[in-house]
Amino acid sequence: MTTELKTGGQHGYLRIATEEAFATEEQLDAILRLVKEGRADKGTVSLWGFYGTSPSERTTFIRERLLDLGELRLAAMDEAGIDKAVLALTSPGVQSMFDLDEARGIAARANDHLAAACERHSDRFIGMTAICPQDAEWSAQELKRGKEELGFVGVQVNSHTHGHYLDEEQFDPILRACADMDIPLYIHPQGPPDEMIGGMVEAGLEGAIFGFAVETSYHALRLLTTGVFDRYPSLKLVLGHGCEGLPFWIDRFNYMFNAGVRSQRYDRLKPLQHSLHHYLRTNVWGTNSGLPSPASIKLMMEVMGEDRVLYAMDYPYQYVPDEVRLLDAIDISPEQKVKFFQTNAEALFGL
Amino acid sequence: MTTELKTGGQHGYLRIATEEAFATEEQLDAILRLVKEGRADKGTVSLWGFYGTSPSERTTFIRERLLDLGELRLAAMDEAGIDKAVLALTSPGVQSMFDLDEARGIAARANDHLAAACERHSDRFIGMTAICPQDAEWSAQELKRGKEELGFVGVQVNSHTHGHYLDEEQFDPILRACADMDIPLYIHPQGPPDEMIGGMVEAGLEGAIFGFAVETSYHALRLLTTGVFDRYPSLKLVLGHGCEGLPFWIDRFNYMFNAGVRSQRYDRLKPLQHSLHHYLRTNVWGTNSGLPSPASIKLMMEVMGEDRVLYAMDYPYQYVPDEVRLLDAIDISPEQKVKFFQTNAEALFGL
Repeated sequence: MTTELKTGGQHGYLRIATEEAFATEEQLDAILRLVKEGRADKGTVSLWGFYGTSPSERTTFIRERLLDLGELRLAAMDEAGIDKAVLALTSPGVQSMFDLDEARGIAARANDHLAAACERHSDRFIGMTAICPQDAEWSAQELKRGKEELGFVGVQVNSHTHGHYLDEEQFDPILRACADMDIPLYIHPQGPPDEMIGGMVEAGLEGAIFGFAVETSYHALRLLTTGVFDRYPSLKLVLGHGCEGLPFWIDRFNYMFNAGVRSQRYDRLKPLQHSLHHYLRTNVWGTNSGLPSPASIKLMMEVMGEDRVLYAMDYPYQYVPDEVRLLDAIDISPEQKVKFFQTNAEALFGL
Repeated sequence: MTTELKTGGQHGYLRIATEEAFATEEQLDAILRLVKEGRADKGTVSLWGFYGTSPSERTTFIRERLLDLGELRLAAMDEAGIDKAVLALTSPGVQSMFDLDEARGIAARANDHLAAACERHSDRFIGMTAICPQDAEWSAQELKRGKEELGFVGVQVNSHTHGHYLDEEQFDPILRACADMDIPLYIHPQGPPDEMIGGMVEAGLEGAIFGFAVETSYHALRLLTTGVFDRYPSLKLVLGHGCEGLPFWIDRFNYMFNAGVRSQRYDRLKPLQHSLHHYLRTNVWGTNSGLPSPASIKLMMEVMGEDRVLYAMDYPYQYVPDEVRLLDAIDISPEQKVKFFQTNAEALFGL
């Protein structure tokens, strides 16, 4: 396919890519230092030991593109016909770090850096706040600063924080801030924590190919099954990568959840106010980052509703303009295509 | 929905349920002994500590129904309009056991017991062989006995064996026997091994709701990514539960596999003769056990092809006649419905 991809919406819609990554030098330096010191978990060692040091064409491209919030990125967006990119600090953010002063500082400076780029290119770049879940109270304050001072439209949490998940009580200030300030919570993958990674690294399967989805769907399901959305009915959860498979599995989740609750199998699982379908269709949005797959996108729309499925590219990890061409041609209605590429993102993020 | 579900095919097809479970007393006794002695893994402790001892309505029903290969099962099949059931020894088979004499004996006697039931009810019951992967050479012999003497049409392996997977060299005799004798290999879930289960048990998520799919899709992906189907191009792999999500994810698997191979990220991942799509569409069949979901079934058909998607109920774990009514009404063509409920199973299992 060789037709030129144009920005500007002449074909009927703007293309807003909603899960696009950037990094800062000090973030990558800090993560690589942890890797070298043997203090990073296996997933981080595999991910950044590879992306941070490999001389391959793929990793060189990705490193260079992650660090750029200017001309390279804009040229790539132009080439792929992407009008706007919703940007977030790349996985694992600062969540692998142990020194909280350092972690908070790196997150805050990344936010300042991103805000400046969004101001320079206000017609192209949109920001999400980076936080440091290790310090939930600070993170709640940073969410306020991100929304009110920096103009950010959401927050990205890179799944587990040292093996802990947002349903745990210590993270409640983050969920409350998201709900109170109407900040969509995008849970982005990283590798599973050491106690869940098993032989995945040796198998070559702990990363984006497989382990990322295990980790992130597990995180989401922990939230869905423990009443988080009964406590915070307005909380908005966003998941990439085909909504991390949840729409495909929702009937099984719901059946087995109810069976477990009825037979009181687990202390942790109690009756909820609604079915798991309800939360998926009320509190969850899904993007197709890394999954430019018509069949999967159509399933998401059928199961979640066409107002809840958003386009994403996953630049620079998966920069393939032909995927945009493929999705331009997806067999959904023109109205659905406008929602998918443009207006669902505008509605969710308040653009 | 209250219309009567009839067997006999007057509505246009027989219903063949392809992932139906039974147990033997000595199998459950041996597993519960391991649980009591503290020698079973966390997944088995959770699964059989619950199903084996809970007094709840659900578990009492399931225990009674697993042990029955006679009137209760036939009555349930009649009530749900199931003409034929493909039966296999319930998870984890004998794969949690350490005493190989005992494990082999329990598997062999389960095979004899099942063969007798299939002979008594040859118009309703079809058998799959139980093996003891801990002893791969014995298992290959038992596969031969199952096929040639007992009339069985496949083999069920309940995913990992003490944390080991069928792509590992010690299990090669099993794969070779399946390929050489044209025996479909059904990989059925169990909980993830201890090194991969993390906090899933405490979260109530290690079982059929979530962990089963993590474990089984991991197992399948290990086979797909390591050239097993280049070594054995005729090998037939069957996966339940919506083909364990593989069709939803296949584009991402394939993209990230190729990216990893090109950049030589993992020693284990080498170029294959074909794309991962090819193996999914050539060597893999999927059933909808536990996933009576029109959207997911249609996605499976779109991605894998309509000749590779089979009906299953997952009796007695998920005995819901209304699910049969729902799938009778699924919006696929009449020809596709015949394939789904009947002829794909006949072709795959040589019925």
